[in-house]
Amino acid sequence: MKVVIVGGVAGGMSAATRLRRLNEDAQIVVFERGAHVSFANCGLPYYAGGVIEDRDALLLQTPESLAARFELDVRVHTEVISIDPDARTVTVRDLSAGDETVESYDELVLSPGASPIVPDLPGVERALVLRDVDDVDRLVAAIGDTARTAVIVGAGFIGIELAENLRRRDLEVTVVELADQVLGPLDPEMAAPVADELRAGGIGLELGNQVAAIGRGDVTLADGRVLPADVVVMAIGVRPESALVVAAGIATGPRGGIAVDELMRTSAEHVYAVGDAVEKVDAVSGEPGLVPLANPANRQGRLVADVISGLPVRPRRVVGTAIVGVFSLMAAAVGWNEKRLRAAGRRYRAIHSHPQSHAGYYPGAQGMSLKLLVDPDTDAILGAQGVGGDGVDKRIDVIATAMVGGITASELADLELAYAPQFGSAKDPVNMLGYIADNLRAGTAATIQWHELPATLAAGATLVDVRTPEEYAAGSIPGSVNIELDTLRARAGQLPAGEVVVTCQVGQRGHTAARILRQLGHDVRNLDGGYRTWLAAGDHVDILV
Amino acid sequence: MKVVIVGGVAGGMSAATRLRRLNEDAQIVVFERGAHVSFANCGLPYYAGGVIEDRDALLLQTPESLAARFELDVRVHTEVISIDPDARTVTVRDLSAGDETVESYDELVLSPGASPIVPDLPGVERALVLRDVDDVDRLVAAIGDTARTAVIVGAGFIGIELAENLRRRDLEVTVVELADQVLGPLDPEMAAPVADELRAGGIGLELGNQVAAIGRGDVTLADGRVLPADVVVMAIGVRPESALVVAAGIATGPRGGIAVDELMRTSAEHVYAVGDAVEKVDAVSGEPGLVPLANPANRQGRLVADVISGLPVRPRRVVGTAIVGVFSLMAAAVGWNEKRLRAAGRRYRAIHSHPQSHAGYYPGAQGMSLKLLVDPDTDAILGAQGVGGDGVDKRIDVIATAMVGGITASELADLELAYAPQFGSAKDPVNMLGYIADNLRAGTAATIQWHELPATLAAGATLVDVRTPEEYAAGSIPGSVNIELDTLRARAGQLPAGEVVVTCQVGQRGHTAARILRQLGHDVRNLDGGYRTWLAAGDHVDILV
Repeated sequence: MKVVIVGGVAGGMSAATRLRRLNEDAQIVVFERGAHVSFANCGLPYYAGGVIEDRDALLLQTPESLAARFELDVRVHTEVISIDPDARTVTVRDLSAGDETVESYDELVLSPGASPIVPDLPGVERALVLRDVDDVDRLVAAIGDTARTAVIVGAGFIGIELAENLRRRDLEVTVVELADQVLGPLDPEMAAPVADELRAGGIGLELGNQVAAIGRGDVTLADGRVLPADVVVMAIGVRPESALVVAAGIATGPRGGIAVDELMRTSAEHVYAVGDAVEKVDAVSGEPGLVPLANPANRQGRLVADVISGLPVRPRRVVGTAIVGVFSLMAAAVGWNEKRLRAAGRRYRAIHSHPQSHAGYYPGAQGMSLKLLVDPDTDAILGAQGVGGDGVDKRIDVIATAMVGGITASELADLELAYAPQFGSAKDPVNMLGYIADNLRAGTAATIQWHELPATLAAGATLVDVRTPEEYAAGSIPGSVNIELDTLRARAGQLPAGEVVVTCQVGQRGHTAARILRQLGHDVRNLDGGYRTWLAAGDHVDILV
Repeated sequence: MKVVIVGGVAGGMSAATRLRRLNEDAQIVVFERGAHVSFANCGLPYYAGGVIEDRDALLLQTPESLAARFELDVRVHTEVISIDPDARTVTVRDLSAGDETVESYDELVLSPGASPIVPDLPGVERALVLRDVDDVDRLVAAIGDTARTAVIVGAGFIGIELAENLRRRDLEVTVVELADQVLGPLDPEMAAPVADELRAGGIGLELGNQVAAIGRGDVTLADGRVLPADVVVMAIGVRPESALVVAAGIATGPRGGIAVDELMRTSAEHVYAVGDAVEKVDAVSGEPGLVPLANPANRQGRLVADVISGLPVRPRRVVGTAIVGVFSLMAAAVGWNEKRLRAAGRRYRAIHSHPQSHAGYYPGAQGMSLKLLVDPDTDAILGAQGVGGDGVDKRIDVIATAMVGGITASELADLELAYAPQFGSAKDPVNMLGYIADNLRAGTAATIQWHELPATLAAGATLVDVRTPEEYAAGSIPGSVNIELDTLRARAGQLPAGEVVVTCQVGQRGHTAARILRQLGHDVRNLDGGYRTWLAAGDHVDILV
């Protein structure tokens, strides 16, 4: 058996090594257009910033090491320029020598990845991108000893990692983002602390703005302002590398990625595809989508090796768990966010909380904000987001696992998570999300979202802030009245008729207040996430209302 | 409705506050024998060690704060001395005044907890225990300015936390433990790094030993040696406080805890019980057991409030997730360990790995050891253990969640866990456990455990170490021969006939080696966990063989 693999990173290389372990006798040829295989692409921003000092650390394998251990025939600087599925051949070009040859295959695995989107702007040829080791070499060379300013276009995961890392190199960095929030995978009120952290780290943010032209040493924004920019990096997203398959008559999907079935088979026989270039079945919608992440790419690479080797496999859907570090914060997400649910017209319930990373009585606890999105009909978890210090990654990983395991939102209350006071709480933040979900499901609690508040107050509801007078004085929602929780039973009679909204700092005291008032006969809802979520939402009300 | 609650910590107080939120009109009386309610019992060792400086930080609530917010009638220093389930009354003694009164109830919730086991030793009255705030006050007073030496009896979670914390106070600390390993919830090869860490922290360990007598300022061990001990603390375990229910004719279970059904109902009508005193249904065996942990206690407290309030509830089984910090290490476990599985005669498969906390190419990765126990018939996860630095808690929490969600061992490979290089790996340590499990399940890998190695070698198997000559020279398993992996294909012909066992540092190269040799026709198994697990197991072979 001869297997040809196109693309020697993540999915392609996982396929190649697994194939060898399963088939000692197979001939396995890997073509890689770039100079390196199996490099640490997620480490590139950190090498640019000097966190990873040794460039060799990025190069996890070489063609030589892969030949020695796995008897792989790895050819770098070699581009596959066409596929003939009927003849079972590919035409490859040696990018160094320039000559072309035809290579036959029994099975073909495509792992071409996704390429950075570069918009058609005046001067865009001066912009850099960050996809591979050559790109980061170019970036480091462009910074050199003289660059002082950088503009990064796009405030997604890569853009933010790059911003932090170029700031580490003492550049004056501005991030320009078309949306009026950073980190699109998060909802605006969850992304707000990330923007604050970036600004606190000395990074300029131009949200709701875009680059109109790239000059020599500057960029011009759509609003006409000019920013100095010795270095410009485009990081507005990636697009699946599907030109090769389109030319070969192989089907693409609705999102422009290579269409594959659950066994990673394309529309052409004996041709498989994996990784960022393919459309994956989304766990929430059951529909194909683009999820350019390393974990599914690796997993698919192994799966396709099993398929080719005739082993039984478990197809899997993707939940799209992702995380980014932002100075001392981390921000993570899984599944769908509220924006996407609203756009798709799906029913959902949102839950916000602001727990501590571990028991408050043990020193060093760090705050975080969590958001859970729930299907109100089935109680299924649709997605989650977290931003904060220590332990955000743990909570998102637990929720991602719960989603895959079919654990409902309410059942998060039942999870037994490892507790000692330096690691968590007897009621872990994930348990607390479950308790809140359970109360909403059972009807023992009713909440109102930050973006529903203006209309509700306009309709005449009374907003009661049950925090202490000291907390209230330090900042409160306009129009609220302060009745401290521990005096609420005595003073509830002062409330006017009609709907009451209660709020506190994070929503917990508000829940107790709502329970008291409801049992006293009031029509009451608790502001989800309390003052803190409202504050983080800031002026984003327009977005979601 | 009048609800009487016996015990004002964890389960009892969770029940009380939830009951109030659900029933504004109920009369809720909480009797607590001690001086404090709702204190941070898991923080006590850290207050003893000065990590938590402020004693008030331990006191999360007071009777006054609970009255103000939840209208609870909390009576401390008040012991319930008998229950009359037919009359629906309890007799309570005011421990300050000494008088007894009879209190009626509609519903009774017992949350008496568990008390430290104090064996019948000469001088045992000089030993301290650590259960509540009074105990820690006594301990701190006993240390005073003059104590220089301490002996802690028992190397379980509490004993180890205490050892570290008394060491922090500059005491010379020795831990005496009957078993020949620390941390019974872990298997010996997993507990070994914890023992090393304790010794490195300056703590003396007397394993396989016990205290025969406690003198004034010293203890005498069973082997006759005398250790100086200004302070002696008993931490050999806890026993459910069931005397009260036994006297009332209420049923206890096979392990001596209060017997309850899935709704926390005891054998007496209108009497419920929660927390450390009750037997809980174990998720692995389906049998009742004692699991004295804070998370299930809190969860049961809330559940019993729902039951009393007529809300539908989800019964839950316990997996018993637990964690302990040991200087710079953490050690965590969930479900059953190998010792327990063997003792119960259950079939299982063990998997050891030694991953890094995050991608190796990003600075600061810390090592950890993980162990997974799998049902070979169903691929169900039976338990897991972890010891190491950063991120052990995250992996055990993910596995605990997977167990509850019915995710099989092989399906751990499919989990999408949040990956950026400072937080994990594209193939997370949990995924890797899944890959190994999947190979074992599918038969594409066969492993041998450290404790099976001596007999297998004695029967004539050849042990091949496929690490580099440098690694091999730094330490290897006696009787092994060194054939570096990348030369194995060429040198495989040199191997004698008969079974081959391959090994490497952690098991990963061994897997590739085993795949090569198997396809060359050898009967081969890979040493699970490699040299590192073998080394950690040390002389524990006797235990499990």
